[in-house]
Amino acid sequence: MKLHWSPRSPFVRKVMVAAHELGLADRIHTVRTVVASTAPNRDLLPDNPISKIPTLVLDDGTVIYDSVVICEYLNDLAGGSLFPKAGMARWNVLTWHAIVDAFLEFLLLWRAEREKPRERQTPELLAAFAVKYESGMARLEKEIAGLSAQPVNVVHITLGLLLSYLDFRFPDFQWRDGHPALAAWHAEFVTRPSMQATEARDG
Amino acid sequence: MKLHWSPRSPFVRKVMVAAHELGLADRIHTVRTVVASTAPNRDLLPDNPISKIPTLVLDDGTVIYDSVVICEYLNDLAGGSLFPKAGMARWNVLTWHAIVDAFLEFLLLWRAEREKPRERQTPELLAAFAVKYESGMARLEKEIAGLSAQPVNVVHITLGLLLSYLDFRFPDFQWRDGHPALAAWHAEFVTRPSMQATEARDG
Repeated sequence: MKLHWSPRSPFVRKVMVAAHELGLADRIHTVRTVVASTAPNRDLLPDNPISKIPTLVLDDGTVIYDSVVICEYLNDLAGGSLFPKAGMARWNVLTWHAIVDAFLEFLLLWRAEREKPRERQTPELLAAFAVKYESGMARLEKEIAGLSAQPVNVVHITLGLLLSYLDFRFPDFQWRDGHPALAAWHAEFVTRPSMQATEARDG
Repeated sequence: MKLHWSPRSPFVRKVMVAAHELGLADRIHTVRTVVASTAPNRDLLPDNPISKIPTLVLDDGTVIYDSVVICEYLNDLAGGSLFPKAGMARWNVLTWHAIVDAFLEFLLLWRAEREKPRERQTPELLAAFAVKYESGMARLEKEIAGLSAQPVNVVHITLGLLLSYLDFRFPDFQWRDGHPALAAWHAEFVTRPSMQATEARDG
């Protein structure tokens, strides 16, 4: 399997953490594929016509996209337990995954917005991101006890990456202040070999 | 079931089209919930801490999010066939759904960007959207014959809404020019009762 990969995309990293958790990492051939919201990669378009990563290409050429679909594909392949198979446990995990994933998605938009010259920024958008951040973090701080009681699944992986992304791109937020339960959970989660093996590096 | 709803969000409409296709529309109580990227809705935060719609709330208070998770939940409830149950058919549908959904997602960002005063726009971003649009539409034009041979599923619903969204928010694109197969498919798809019942209206 070929994975269109980049060292600093949290969505790519989600796939790689899942692959490590599932014991499949050595079956994935990563290909460095540079994409940016302002610079589509034309070499990627035959595999993904809207130029997004991660995109997985199976040996027969079949394309699997996006990160959560790739994670569930790998989970199926390995007979893993990153996704409950059915029932309310499944909807609960998919819902929390989607919330944390959309949180991560707007952090990327927020970063792009705040890096613009001030005269091109939209203040209402920055204010809206701040409201969602406060609300999202407060809720996750309440939920983490329940979430962390579950076996490791795609929610934990995505949440681990969200918090690590805050460390990486928003160190000024000092997110641990006011969120001691999340901080304690994250400190333990990042010691997992899957997280250690996929740490974002310059490169 | 309560659905946080808005008449003009294509992601909300995806859920409502699915509900009509599955015969569940009359079990869904829609609640008008106004959200914008620049204006989070504080009343929505208890159900969805990052203020996104559609968000479904079951009678016991369980929250289901995002649009594709809600669609699959409803599909399960109705014993429908909007999602293949397993195997490559499933990964294929989930992948094409994710591509079309991400396409729709960047159309919303594109609309927000092009409505800004020119001095606040990012020209590289507008240029990147145009590249992805051309590439995405060209690919869908090629794929539509194969896609439309499948029984109606979540890909068709999302693609129908993507094309209708282009009509609604980007009429200047005249997307039918150069995409006759997509145009023919869309002309037929919009005659479905599920599409007719959910057409975007001012309100």
